[in-house]
Amino acid sequence: MLTLPAFANCHSHAFHRALRGRVTGAGTFWQWRDQMYALAGTLDPDLMFALAKATYGEMRLAGIGVVGEFHYVHHGPAGKPYDDPNAMGEALIAAAREAGIRICLLDTCYLAAGFGKAPEGVQQRFSDGSAEAWAARVNDLAARYEGVDDVVIGAAIHSVRALPADQLATVAEALPRAPLHVHVSEQPAENEECMAATGLTPTALLAEAGVWTSRTTAVHTTHLNSDDIHTIGEAASYVCFCPTTESELADGIGPSVALRDAGARLTLGSDSNTVIDMFEEARAVEMNERLASGIRGAWSAGELVGAATVTGYESLGFPSGDQIQLSTDSVRMAGVIEPLWAATAADVIDNPANVAEDLHRAAARKLQSAIEACWGRV
Amino acid sequence: MLTLPAFANCHSHAFHRALRGRVTGAGTFWQWRDQMYALAGTLDPDLMFALAKATYGEMRLAGIGVVGEFHYVHHGPAGKPYDDPNAMGEALIAAAREAGIRICLLDTCYLAAGFGKAPEGVQQRFSDGSAEAWAARVNDLAARYEGVDDVVIGAAIHSVRALPADQLATVAEALPRAPLHVHVSEQPAENEECMAATGLTPTALLAEAGVWTSRTTAVHTTHLNSDDIHTIGEAASYVCFCPTTESELADGIGPSVALRDAGARLTLGSDSNTVIDMFEEARAVEMNERLASGIRGAWSAGELVGAATVTGYESLGFPSGDQIQLSTDSVRMAGVIEPLWAATAADVIDNPANVAEDLHRAAARKLQSAIEACWGRV
Repeated sequence: MLTLPAFANCHSHAFHRALRGRVTGAGTFWQWRDQMYALAGTLDPDLMFALAKATYGEMRLAGIGVVGEFHYVHHGPAGKPYDDPNAMGEALIAAAREAGIRICLLDTCYLAAGFGKAPEGVQQRFSDGSAEAWAARVNDLAARYEGVDDVVIGAAIHSVRALPADQLATVAEALPRAPLHVHVSEQPAENEECMAATGLTPTALLAEAGVWTSRTTAVHTTHLNSDDIHTIGEAASYVCFCPTTESELADGIGPSVALRDAGARLTLGSDSNTVIDMFEEARAVEMNERLASGIRGAWSAGELVGAATVTGYESLGFPSGDQIQLSTDSVRMAGVIEPLWAATAADVIDNPANVAEDLHRAAARKLQSAIEACWGRV
Repeated sequence: MLTLPAFANCHSHAFHRALRGRVTGAGTFWQWRDQMYALAGTLDPDLMFALAKATYGEMRLAGIGVVGEFHYVHHGPAGKPYDDPNAMGEALIAAAREAGIRICLLDTCYLAAGFGKAPEGVQQRFSDGSAEAWAARVNDLAARYEGVDDVVIGAAIHSVRALPADQLATVAEALPRAPLHVHVSEQPAENEECMAATGLTPTALLAEAGVWTSRTTAVHTTHLNSDDIHTIGEAASYVCFCPTTESELADGIGPSVALRDAGARLTLGSDSNTVIDMFEEARAVEMNERLASGIRGAWSAGELVGAATVTGYESLGFPSGDQIQLSTDSVRMAGVIEPLWAATAADVIDNPANVAEDLHRAAARKLQSAIEACWGRV
């Protein structure tokens, strides 16, 4: 048995877990998004809680100690706020607490369907109407969790698609000491639309709004030019790669090595939760780089473990120190010297001091029932 | 619980299992090969048996019913044959039988260190001196296993690097009804050396020797031109992709879709056994295609399951029909409709009728001890 630092899963959409093994098969990224929107339309705070608690339970069993939840399904049908406008965020926080993992709730501003387009359909549930209204709601939520050690409230810009350019700076400044996350250049179409609308790449447009700092995490950064890489690296921002999702959604292989060499700090996320296995995410950064470059060893095991643990905790505003136990007596691990290259989530040992004996099966039953409840409403 | 057809693992080098988590980190393909040769130098029939039995045990626990063992460490130090010149092959067959999986022993002809180069160092242990001498040894072995239902003796050409061109046809014809396997174009350097020496691609050179038939499997086929794809497809040959190894060794992403569309039949292998998980191999064909093309859904789950099961059994000369049980009550599988997109080797249920209760741990202990025995000799 080995003791290792717990993982930081820096980019999660908990409710996407209900898509696993259901809409994996085909369709473009944008068709996949339509299915994901159908699922988002089914959620209310109770169902969000049930689905997130079971998903965070799976994360806990996979050795994850802290999750960055990129949360944008804020309001009820047609965008009507709940009695507590932070009811959905509170459901996610309660879910993490019951599952026994820490959470950085990245409350996400989402105001537009695209450049110059009002929110459509389920996107109305994501929108606060303006960045100012979003900031007021988020500041109220942040005040509730000041000084606690298991919850951080962070800010997020969904993407340059989802926010008018003149609203970006308001989000960036709303929580000036908290983590700030943003989806950047996941698909070529985002870059093309941004160039057509503004004459700038997403990274350059975000730079004009003062987004790039050492507390910022750029998620994906799959399709960057060399100026973009320089901008993000010079700010010593974090870049959160989500390799299992980035292959599932046919995004591509991002320039992880160039970003690191420019000064950016790698973190990792399970994103769509098609896979919840931080060993696999970390390995895939190096393995995808091998596929793209034909060269082995650009990332060492130590660097990748750091990205998945210490750097990730730091990017979410938490001190590290949580630990997990890894089985070394499985057939997978026999003879292995460097666990990163061989371990899977299934090799993490449930912690008997904190986890009920049947948590694994119980978590599975709860997940099954929450997922069926969602799809029953589509 | 789901009942599924058992997997065919169509390309394995059992002894490479001792490299897992030890030489994964860095170095070129050719530097990796030096380490692998150091390991090969440690083997004798007893150690080969111990290592292969434990590795095949891991395969069995991962739901693999038949393995294609691409076997080339035939002789003792400096190439001296054992008292039984087939002692190493017999050790592998005995290991598979004790582990409870079927084996297609692909007895591999290996005569040269490269174009016009005699075998060097440990390669002397691989060589029979001539294709004729190889064929005599292999025919003797095949005669011992005629008519049994758990062992098939097949033939293999290691690669165009390892056989003089005038010896290829002898290997292709030695066992005229048995499977014939060959490594093809795994690395660009193989293509370059073959072109320089013969003016032909490896696929074209093998075509001149009559290698391409419907009983032939081309392993890897990572770097092909359109003529190569046409040649292999027109023969309705099998192509065995080994995605976890092909990323680990920085080989690249092969043209799986173009090969299928040309008429080739996909199979899958764990190859270097850095990973033993046929769900992961099958998924990776589609996920790598998504990374290379930006398009989702070129391979359906049904096609990939077929490649990993029925087509694989057929390519190794076995009827299919073996079955495995898959757990559906894990947190990984909750809510999943199509298991291929979500399951891992850890979700395969040990078969209580055939497998001792502690096989998993016992297999791990035996693997650990065989691996330590190997490295203790380096």
